Formats: sequence, C-alpha cells, structure tokens
Amino acid sequence: MSERVNRQWRLVARPVGNFKDSDFEWREEPVQSPGDGQILVRNLYLSLDPTNRIWATDIESYLPPVGLGDVMRGGGIAVVEESNNEKFPKGAIVQGLTGWQDYLLTDGAGLSVMPVMPGVPLTAYLALFSHIGLTAYFGLLDVGKPQAGETLVVSGAAGATGSLVGQIGKIVGCRVVGIAGGAAKCRWLVEELGFDAAIDYKSENVSAKLKEHCPKGVDVYFENVGGEILDAVLAVINNKARIALCGMISQYNATTPVPGPYNLANLISRRARIEGFIVLDYMARSAECFTDLGKWLMAGKLKYRVDEVEGLENTPRAINKLFEGTNTGKLVVKISDL
Amino acid sequence: MSERVNRQWRLVARPVGNFKDSDFEWREEPVQSPGDGQILVRNLYLSLDPTNRIWATDIESYLPPVGLGDVMRGGGIAVVEESNNEKFPKGAIVQGLTGWQDYLLTDGAGLSVMPVMPGVPLTAYLALFSHIGLTAYFGLLDVGKPQAGETLVVSGAAGATGSLVGQIGKIVGCRVVGIAGGAAKCRWLVEELGFDAAIDYKSENVSAKLKEHCPKGVDVYFENVGGEILDAVLAVINNKARIALCGMISQYNATTPVPGPYNLANLISRRARIEGFIVLDYMARSAECFTDLGKWLMAGKLKYRVDEVEGLENTPRAINKLFEGTNTGKLVVKISDL
Repeated sequence: MSERVNRQWRLVARPVGNFKDSDFEWREEPVQSPGDGQILVRNLYLSLDPTNRIWATDIESYLPPVGLGDVMRGGGIAVVEESNNEKFPKGAIVQGLTGWQDYLLTDGAGLSVMPVMPGVPLTAYLALFSHIGLTAYFGLLDVGKPQAGETLVVSGAAGATGSLVGQIGKIVGCRVVGIAGGAAKCRWLVEELGFDAAIDYKSENVSAKLKEHCPKGVDVYFENVGGEILDAVLAVINNKARIALCGMISQYNATTPVPGPYNLANLISRRARIEGFIVLDYMARSAECFTDLGKWLMAGKLKYRVDEVEGLENTPRAINKLFEGTNTGKLVVKISDL
Repeated sequence: MSERVNRQWRLVARPVGNFKDSDFEWREEPVQSPGDGQILVRNLYLSLDPTNRIWATDIESYLPPVGLGDVMRGGGIAVVEESNNEKFPKGAIVQGLTGWQDYLLTDGAGLSVMPVMPGVPLTAYLALFSHIGLTAYFGLLDVGKPQAGETLVVSGAAGATGSLVGQIGKIVGCRVVGIAGGAAKCRWLVEELGFDAAIDYKSENVSAKLKEHCPKGVDVYFENVGGEILDAVLAVINNKARIALCGMISQYNATTPVPGPYNLANLISRRARIEGFIVLDYMARSAECFTDLGKWLMAGKLKYRVDEVEGLENTPRAINKLFEGTNTGKLVVKISDL
C-alpha cells in the first residue's frame, strides 16, 4: 500500500488561448492514508468541461481561480478506497471536484455518494446524471421556459449539454434547431437525436439557415457559444423570447477582449431577455431532474454520447477538444478501473 | 377657417448620425375639414423622445419606420378643433401620435382623450402622465423588480425617464445612484430629486465611482444609454441582478455598428438578467401607474422638469439635444396655445 503514487497535473501558468502542456506540471507524490474523519478516494473518471478554462483564469468568477501550483480543479467520479468517515463507506462511488489526479485525501466536503443504479454505466453519471444533466434540464426549463409549439435553438448542440437540451426541447413539444460544427455532428443531431434541423456553422450561413429553419422565429435560445452566433440569433428572436445564457465558449480562450453582440438592442424591440445561470444553484433540486432524465432515458427519448479519452496523462491535451470543437457528446478521461 | 395652414416637417432622408435639417422638408398645406367619423385636432405640444430617431431609421422595430416623404412621427398633445366623432368631442384634449405638424385629420385611431385634472399643467401629461411615466414605472417595477434595501443604478438619470426612475426607486426604498452628463445635472439629481449619489460620466471615472457609491454592488440597473456605461455596470452587478433595458441612446446615432458589452459573460457568473421592454405593452395598465404617480406627486415625493422649446419650426434642431445630452428632464416643443 505504501507504494501507491498519486500522479497529478498541477496548474503552473495562466493559459493564454488554449491550454498548453507548459501550463501544467506533472507531479508524482506518495499517497497518504486518511486521518480522523478523512477518506481516500481513487479517481475513476474525470469530467472535462468548458468551465475548467474559466477556473484556470485569474478572475473571481462563481468559484475562485485555481491557485498556481495547485492540482487542477475538475469534476470526477471516484471510489472510496479507505475511509475514516461513516458518511463515505469504503467501496462507495462518489462524485465531486476530485481534481486532475489519481487520488484525493479529503474530509469529504463537496463530495456526494452516488446511488449507482444497476445496468447504468458509470459514464452516465458524468454525461447525464450530473452537472451536465442539471445544466441542460434547469437551464432550459427554468430559465428558457419553453412552451409546446415554440421554436428552440441551441448552440453547441452536439456538446454534452446542448445535445440534451435539444432532446428535452423535443420532449416538451418544441421545434428544435441545433447549431454545431461539422456535417457529422449535424447528421447525429437530426438522424439520431431527433432534432428538426441542424445548422453547420462551419460550412453554412447561420443567419440564412436560421431564417429557413425557424420560419416562425425563435422563442427560446439556449446559448453555449456567444459571439457571432448569438448575434445571428438575436436578429431573429420573437417577442418575449428567452435566451438562457449557459456559456460563451467562443470567448473563454480569447486573448483580447471580445465585444458583445451588435444586436443587443433587439432585446428592446422584441421585449426579450438574456439570463445567465449557474448549475450550482440547482443542486438542491437534483432529484426532480434525475427522476425525469431517468424516465426519459428508459423510454428511449433521451440519448447521450460519451467521448472517452484514456489516461490521466492525456488530460491537458484532451481538454482542448472542447475549444477546437472536436468532441461529440460528453468529454471524459478514464483514470482507472473500478 | 379656410385660411388655416398645416405646417409640417416631413422626413425626406434617412438620418446618418444626428438629425440634420436636410433630413426634413418644411411643407405648408391647407387644412381640410373632417369627413364622416373624422376629427381635426390641433397640436399643443410635441414630445421629443429618443425613439424618434429609431423611427426615422429604415429598420422594422416595434413600429414600422416612418416612410420617406411622410410627416415625421411623434407623440403629442392636441385639442379637438372640429369633430364628427362623438368619442372625441370638440374641445377635448387628446394624446397620441399626432406628428410633427400643426393639425392632424384622423378617425381618432391611436388617440385617447385625456382626463385633464385642474391645476395640472398640460406638460405634466407629457412628462409624467404619459409614455414617460409608464416607461419609468413599469420598466422599473415590473422588469427591474427592485426590493427595499437594494441598490438601483440608472443611466440617463437626468432625462425624462431616468429622473422618474430614480425617484420611484427611492420611494420603494432603494439606494439610488444616477449616471448623468455634467455637474449641474448631477447636483439636480442629488439635491433636488433625492438620489443618494450621482456620477458625472463626462468628468468622472464611472467604474471607480460605481464601486464607491455602490459598496454593496448593484441589484437593479435601469439602462437608457448602453455602450461603455453598460459594461461598467455589468462589472459590478450582484447575483440575481436585473437589468431593465429601456434604451441604448448611445447607439441610435451611430454610423458604424456598435459592439455590445464586453462583460456580457458576467451575466452567467452572477446569474443575472438583461430584459428589454416596450411601453406599448403596458398601456392597458395606465390607470394603476397614473394613480401612483399622481399620489406621489401630490405628496411631494415626485418631481419632474420640462425642457420646453418654442415653435414647430425649431423641432429638427431641438431633438438633437437628446443625443447631445443638453436637455434636462422632458424635452417638449410648444406648438400652439390651448
């Protein structure tokens, strides 16, 4: 046991643009045993999310920035290896901010034991029964407030969150149009997930295609991207439209300030709203969300895709897939077997 | 009677930047008598508003643009001179889109008879019991939703709408900080209207002064201006802040596209909202608003100032005071005596 090594990625520089290898330092440290009230957990999977990039930047956001020299912050799923805390029995599966490392020694703050369901793969607890599912569900239903018969547009539609948002939109009776990068992603949205239409922003004129695919205008827009796409949607919103502002991934890696949308004044003539939200505010309502998602999953109404990268050592390069748009579905890193 | 002349300003060119004299043509036409169901009204006052500039631009907004060659659209107060319509008796005072002219021949569509109160000057029906009062009242209370103890910031604070917004904010128990251009306007806000503080954007650092005057952050922002001021406020909003987007006067006269705020992503980490509104949506609730405004006026809690320009002929130049920021309070043009 004393030979166990905790491999870690520590953040040692503030990234400029995409993450670079030199922003991280690989460290190997001996694994300590838990003291009174502590547990030792072993990471099984890491969740890679756009918000990792925000956390690496030296700004106070909804969480403080990761300190230089600290293990990079990240969500994960882990198994309790040793426990001196009865709330986390040995063998339990936990989720929380386990970090970019093999092991975490902790008193359990911020971790929660997952009620693992038989037959459901562990990755479903990253892609669906997770902050991703909560973000899609509450961001769309609580902030976007879609009504049956309305038109919903979602950007980053082939991403982990966007792909769920569009499917939930279909479930509540909306016409759903996704915006994604590349023909393969767009085919997946329409042919497998049941979107009414998809727009390939890399090869198509987004403004023209929005008009074509949203003949009655846009009532709800779920925004993951920002920038020019937000501007294009603002130009075609209906009266009383709701824009749920989940993320603006087009800006996270920007090296110079990115101006906001030119069409913001359309919010006035359209009596429309842009509203930001943070998934942390909905944690207390997880059961409500996961019950619906589970029901829809069993009924075959909800699908998810996991983009799995193997090995902690590949984490710094894997995360840039989010910003290059080369992932489809939930991006995760497999760290170890259960 | 047949000698009466209807002097008019017709829009003959789309303005670039501020209005120029050459955007309008002065026309004098004989006044026609009303036919069946028609009335002839004589303008007493015109209301000059930032939205006039929007209407002159060739874009579909919440109203269609004024056609080239048409009498310039504008709100006004008029007296019924001749009537073949029992809903509008001779001598009644009406308000509505009477246009930049002496007389309007109409079936009365869009006009409403005003219940003129004794002792209340006619200009109060432009500055307070009007679209201005409705905009301030419902924009603040219905969209901004201020709570006692919260901090309210209002831009364009010495304008017709902004000056009411700040006073209503005080009435509902907010700390109120106004942003206006020039020391005289700022003194008026604090010394006469009871604002807690005012920031002179022409001579002070708005960001630094916002931090100083809003030590607990900003909960509600009533936006009349847009541009850099919106960005500065976005940087200091609190969680769950509400931005009521009334206007963006800094952009109406722009000759090149104006980028939106750089700090828009702050809406996410602050779970905050920007919401546009149009006063037309609140017309049906006028009574509710005017009852409160009247009560507050009588109680000395609400003051308004009228910036009165004399003569229809001066209208095209007078309206640019709004964009140059040289008006204080409600800008009106006196057309004729009652």
